[in-house]
Amino acid sequence: MTTNENTRILLASRPHGEPTHDNFQIETAPIPEPGDGEVLLRTIYLSLDPYMRGRMNDAKSYADPQELGAVMQGGTVAEVIESHDDSLAPGDFVLSHLGWQAYGVQPAKHVRKLDPERAPISTAVGVLGMPGFTAYAGLLEIGKPQPGETVVVAAAAGPVGSAVGQIARIKGARAVGIAGGAEKVAWLTELGFDVALDHRSPTFARDLKAAVPDGIDVYFENVGGHVWDAVLPRLNTYARVPICGLVAHYNETEAPAGPDRSARLMTSILTKSITMRGFIQNEFVKGHYRSFQNDVATWIASGDLRYKEDIVAGLENAPEAFFGLLTGKNFGKLLIQVGDDPTR
Amino acid sequence: MTTNENTRILLASRPHGEPTHDNFQIETAPIPEPGDGEVLLRTIYLSLDPYMRGRMNDAKSYADPQELGAVMQGGTVAEVIESHDDSLAPGDFVLSHLGWQAYGVQPAKHVRKLDPERAPISTAVGVLGMPGFTAYAGLLEIGKPQPGETVVVAAAAGPVGSAVGQIARIKGARAVGIAGGAEKVAWLTELGFDVALDHRSPTFARDLKAAVPDGIDVYFENVGGHVWDAVLPRLNTYARVPICGLVAHYNETEAPAGPDRSARLMTSILTKSITMRGFIQNEFVKGHYRSFQNDVATWIASGDLRYKEDIVAGLENAPEAFFGLLTGKNFGKLLIQVGDDPTR
Repeated sequence: MTTNENTRILLASRPHGEPTHDNFQIETAPIPEPGDGEVLLRTIYLSLDPYMRGRMNDAKSYADPQELGAVMQGGTVAEVIESHDDSLAPGDFVLSHLGWQAYGVQPAKHVRKLDPERAPISTAVGVLGMPGFTAYAGLLEIGKPQPGETVVVAAAAGPVGSAVGQIARIKGARAVGIAGGAEKVAWLTELGFDVALDHRSPTFARDLKAAVPDGIDVYFENVGGHVWDAVLPRLNTYARVPICGLVAHYNETEAPAGPDRSARLMTSILTKSITMRGFIQNEFVKGHYRSFQNDVATWIASGDLRYKEDIVAGLENAPEAFFGLLTGKNFGKLLIQVGDDPTR
Repeated sequence: MTTNENTRILLASRPHGEPTHDNFQIETAPIPEPGDGEVLLRTIYLSLDPYMRGRMNDAKSYADPQELGAVMQGGTVAEVIESHDDSLAPGDFVLSHLGWQAYGVQPAKHVRKLDPERAPISTAVGVLGMPGFTAYAGLLEIGKPQPGETVVVAAAAGPVGSAVGQIARIKGARAVGIAGGAEKVAWLTELGFDVALDHRSPTFARDLKAAVPDGIDVYFENVGGHVWDAVLPRLNTYARVPICGLVAHYNETEAPAGPDRSARLMTSILTKSITMRGFIQNEFVKGHYRSFQNDVATWIASGDLRYKEDIVAGLENAPEAFFGLLTGKNFGKLLIQVGDDPTR
């Protein structure tokens, strides 16, 4: 399976608006050699996530920008090929951060060994990894849904949104999911969402109003744009709005035409005693990651929490898949299959 | 002191934009008679507060709108003239809600007896009343300033803002106050604010940047408008923004011209993990009012917390004084002296 060449994708230029193929450069390079305490890894799955768009800009976001000319960053599930550390052996599977490349070297202490018996290894970058934890921590620590309350989640067919809605129901709340297209909406109903809505429908704002007769207590924001416009008037007093992502705006190059509704937004926050809270999951890892792993593993085993993967074969297809991710074309957790998965 | 006539001011029409004299009607009516369990009260001080502007609209805000043709609502400090309840006797002073009128009847259980020996009775609608509690609860329960952090407060020479800055300092934070005009700025310095800035200065945004070399951890929002525009880029990761008022926008009749910056605002909340939280003090009364009264009385006695009153004589001057309140013309807690204060 090993070759002498490492395929990798670099950030060639920074996008202006929607990213294009010109922003990426695919190249081959020698496979790196691990030093003391390091492991050589073979990428099996590369996780593509919306946050990557922000890092492609040369602007301070919640993470440092991606360097120009460097390998695109990203979470990976990989197999150990060669180990210079006692904690790992060839054939072990690990959660790692190799980025968009077929091979890479990491310090052994920077990767986490996975147990393929416990859960499919791909879930380490999905429901049992960063996206699942984002849903768990954002919903429970910021959204704080109470039994009987109404939780609305956008991008509900995505890896974060689908977990948010299902966890809301596990906690006794009513879950309303918003997604784009009939297929995704049907899947949300299958997952047990109380109502599933298509934001592409011309009657979406009315549909949402009808779906939340008691208003909205928690809105888990992944999207922004016209979904948020429909949600805001429906928020109840003391509503909580964890802001996890704003994928509708990531490719915007300038503020949209007026009127300027920012003061109206502030006024709504004031008059309804709303809590809006941006977050990234990192800040909650220390206090909540262990309970997350236990809870989610239990819920997966019991069938209360289901997930879907959208696996695209071939690293060279990562840019195209990434463009689709930003426009809602994928369905389920988007993974690039970079190499064979011996566990499947 | 009693006469047979009660002067009162009614809401005659709803304002479109800035309120005008046409929106108010002054009239005289018979002094009402108290029934069982009720007291007849003579108004000494009427409190004028920015929230009253919102109630003049026919829109759902945090309180029900003021009824057309009814006496303008408002908090008052009054003297008991006649009591049909054992808990109160003529000559007692009470915190009450008579609104914009010289006399009124209230159930004895709806008023709170004041001890003129403990603090000047006017403070019951000021630093020891709703405005003081708004500052205390909003800063400590939402803002949660930590020692060494930077707290910025707008409308800092007002009854809420001046308390916010001083309480921030008592809690070990750095306090930066923003007010309009040299006189107010000088007073903030006198109160011990670490920096005081004039938002009318053409260099205001630069002045603010220079005043917060470590960024802003807590911004207590009373104002909105260009003050908020200057604050937002200076907010730190995990900043907390209690939104208590938006007086710059209360008279707006439509959203300002574009571009629409609302998505940019959401993006800032996301990328900096900011907490924005609207509130009214009511929600905190149950858990915190007693500690507020104790703490603030202690801080007033020790000289750590000072306050200023702006007393306008004559109920008939209430509308004009109210217009000035909305445009920053007053300096200190605005009170209308409706009748004599026998304690001064």
